[in-house]
Amino acid sequence: MPNDPGALNLDQKFEKFSKHWSPHIIAQLNDLHVKAVKLQGTFVWHRHEDTDELFFVQEGTLTIKYRDRDVVLRAGEMHVVPKGVEHRPVADEECEILLIEPAGTLNTGDAGGNLTASEELWI
Amino acid sequence: MPNDPGALNLDQKFEKFSKHWSPHIIAQLNDLHVKAVKLQGTFVWHRHEDTDELFFVQEGTLTIKYRDRDVVLRAGEMHVVPKGVEHRPVADEECEILLIEPAGTLNTGDAGGNLTASEELWI
Repeated sequence: MPNDPGALNLDQKFEKFSKHWSPHIIAQLNDLHVKAVKLQGTFVWHRHEDTDELFFVQEGTLTIKYRDRDVVLRAGEMHVVPKGVEHRPVADEECEILLIEPAGTLNTGDAGGNLTASEELWI
Repeated sequence: MPNDPGALNLDQKFEKFSKHWSPHIIAQLNDLHVKAVKLQGTFVWHRHEDTDELFFVQEGTLTIKYRDRDVVLRAGEMHVVPKGVEHRPVADEECEILLIEPAGTLNTGDAGGNLTASEELWI
C-alpha cells in the first residue's frame, strides 16, 4: 500500500483501531515501516536479532524493561532498543506509540507466542 | 555517538539549539539518523536520489511544496517524501520537525548551496 499522499495525522490514525499489541502500518520509509500500536499490560520478553527498534510515545506512559534497568517513556519521548538486546514493553494504562523498524519485523521477535501479529495491517 | 541510553525528550532536544535549517542528530536506528531541525523561511528545491525522507512536525506548521501540489503538515502530522521527487520545505513561522533518513543524507540533496549542512552534529 502506498504512503498517504498528504499529511498523516497521528491522532486520526489512532482513532481507527482499538486492539492492543496489534501494529498498524501508517507509512513506509525505504524498507522500514512506521507502525501505530496501542499497548496495555505486559508484553513478552523478546529480542530482534537483526534490527534496532525505535519507540515513540504519542500518549500515555510506556516502560521498556531491560534485564538490568527500566526506561520510562512519556508522551513526546523516544528510545531506540538496540538490536539483539532483550526487552519487554509494559504499560500499566493504555498508551499509544509509534514503532519504526524494518518491514516484516515481528512484534514478538525471537519469542513467538500468541501475541505475535503475523498480518501486515495498513490503516 | 551512541544513542541516549534512556528516554529522549523531544522538547528538551529542541531547547538545545536555535539555528534554522541545521539538522541535529538525536538518535540512530540501524543506518538511519533521527534529526531535530528548526525551520523558518523557504528552503531550496532539491531531491534525494537514493532515499525517502520522513518529516514529522513537532511544533508549528510546515508546507512541503512539490512541483504539482503542497502538503501542509501541522504538529502531530507526518509525511514521507518519496525518493527522487523534487520538493521544497517552506515555513512562514518557525517550526520544529524531526527528519528520519539514512545517515549521511545531505539536507539539500542534489541542489547543494550555502544552506548545505555538512557536519554531523549530535545533541
